[in-house]
Amino acid sequence: MNLLLLEDGELDDAGVARLDGRRARHAGEVLRAAAGDTLAVGVVGGRMGRATVLESSPDLLVLRAALDAPPPPPSPVSLLLALPRPKILRKVLQSAASMGVKRIALLGTYRVEKSYFASPLLAPAAIREQLLLGLEQGKDTALPEVALFRHFKPFVEDELDRRFGGAARLVAHPGASPTLDGLPAPAAREVLLAIGPEGGFTPYEAETLAARGFAPFSLGARVLRVDAAVPFAVGQVELWARGGRT
Amino acid sequence: MNLLLLEDGELDDAGVARLDGRRARHAGEVLRAAAGDTLAVGVVGGRMGRATVLESSPDLLVLRAALDAPPPPPSPVSLLLALPRPKILRKVLQSAASMGVKRIALLGTYRVEKSYFASPLLAPAAIREQLLLGLEQGKDTALPEVALFRHFKPFVEDELDRRFGGAARLVAHPGASPTLDGLPAPAAREVLLAIGPEGGFTPYEAETLAARGFAPFSLGARVLRVDAAVPFAVGQVELWARGGRT
Repeated sequence: MNLLLLEDGELDDAGVARLDGRRARHAGEVLRAAAGDTLAVGVVGGRMGRATVLESSPDLLVLRAALDAPPPPPSPVSLLLALPRPKILRKVLQSAASMGVKRIALLGTYRVEKSYFASPLLAPAAIREQLLLGLEQGKDTALPEVALFRHFKPFVEDELDRRFGGAARLVAHPGASPTLDGLPAPAAREVLLAIGPEGGFTPYEAETLAARGFAPFSLGARVLRVDAAVPFAVGQVELWARGGRT
Repeated sequence: MNLLLLEDGELDDAGVARLDGRRARHAGEVLRAAAGDTLAVGVVGGRMGRATVLESSPDLLVLRAALDAPPPPPSPVSLLLALPRPKILRKVLQSAASMGVKRIALLGTYRVEKSYFASPLLAPAAIREQLLLGLEQGKDTALPEVALFRHFKPFVEDELDRRFGGAARLVAHPGASPTLDGLPAPAAREVLLAIGPEGGFTPYEAETLAARGFAPFSLGARVLRVDAAVPFAVGQVELWARGGRT
């Protein structure tokens, strides 16, 4: 935990919060916070800054916060991700939030197992928990939006342009596609990056995405697991996108 | 498992292998291989190709292999990595192998907990197991070399130039460093990428690396956990390095 996140409303008018549970335990046992120490804090959806510890035990953490800074700027990358299996999804939500990705669309494609949509990890509270862990890691307060779309075709036809109309579009696609240095950098501020399931998009899905303006690019000769492919691709797209706004 | 890896010596003169254990179970239960099917196979340290399944049950897999292709070219990136905690190390070894990284130096730095060096995961057989999982994922047969160095100073003074004399050098360093698009792409084929521990390199370590030719660069405004930072940085460095060899 690099940033202690407070919920809106946990600070009283004097800027004091009284916390129990995971955060008190972490501050007391891992950070060994003691009265007088300062901690990096932020409010979910709000500002960040420092807090002075007034009292710390594994059961109770009392602190006074001074929030004087905005969160860091968002990543230019938004994700359109074939829904991975739950164990991998948990890692991907955390790492995406830690990298500053602010919009994540999880999509059912032909090769996504239907059972994944029944995972308890897709409950809003469970998704939020993983995102908060990522924000604590990346030192950010702006919660990503996660939306779930069960079916490829209605998403592409009815939701894609409405939700991501202004974004440049890329799809990571193995095979003969160029690597990113072979594509012109984007003019748009936001880049929607599509990443397929294990086994890839079907030819129909790949063609549909191409017809909707997703430029295919190759991550290289290898097949990465989604939890490695996402940071690998986000890293590349961020570097590539910098070329478009200089 | 995208590639079934055989050990040198498991193929007889007719190109037939008889396997039990994890690989037979995986082929039988996950891939549902049946006689007549073909599987992607490779020999550790050797060539890759296809195999025809002669017999498959959860206890026994018999196949005849035709190995006609070399493994994919290696990543230009080698890693100099502050030893992460064991749970993270396992992920990093797998993902590095899946990305085609061929040389990994694990280093004790001031902020690396000494206890990490006592982990059973650092036994050569345990490291090899994680690397093989990564190669199976990335479809590669060339096993990375992993070397362990307990102390920063003797590594830098006695081992660095000897082992990595021909490589360009980068260190991921937060703060005021330029992003990679601000650095000239390398002329060398190999890029040695240094990534610090949680909490970072100390100022002394960072200065020592800079004096040894490691160019500091920033991954962005955020603090990534090592298992996300490694693929994020390797992705960026691969894209950046392409600019140097066109």
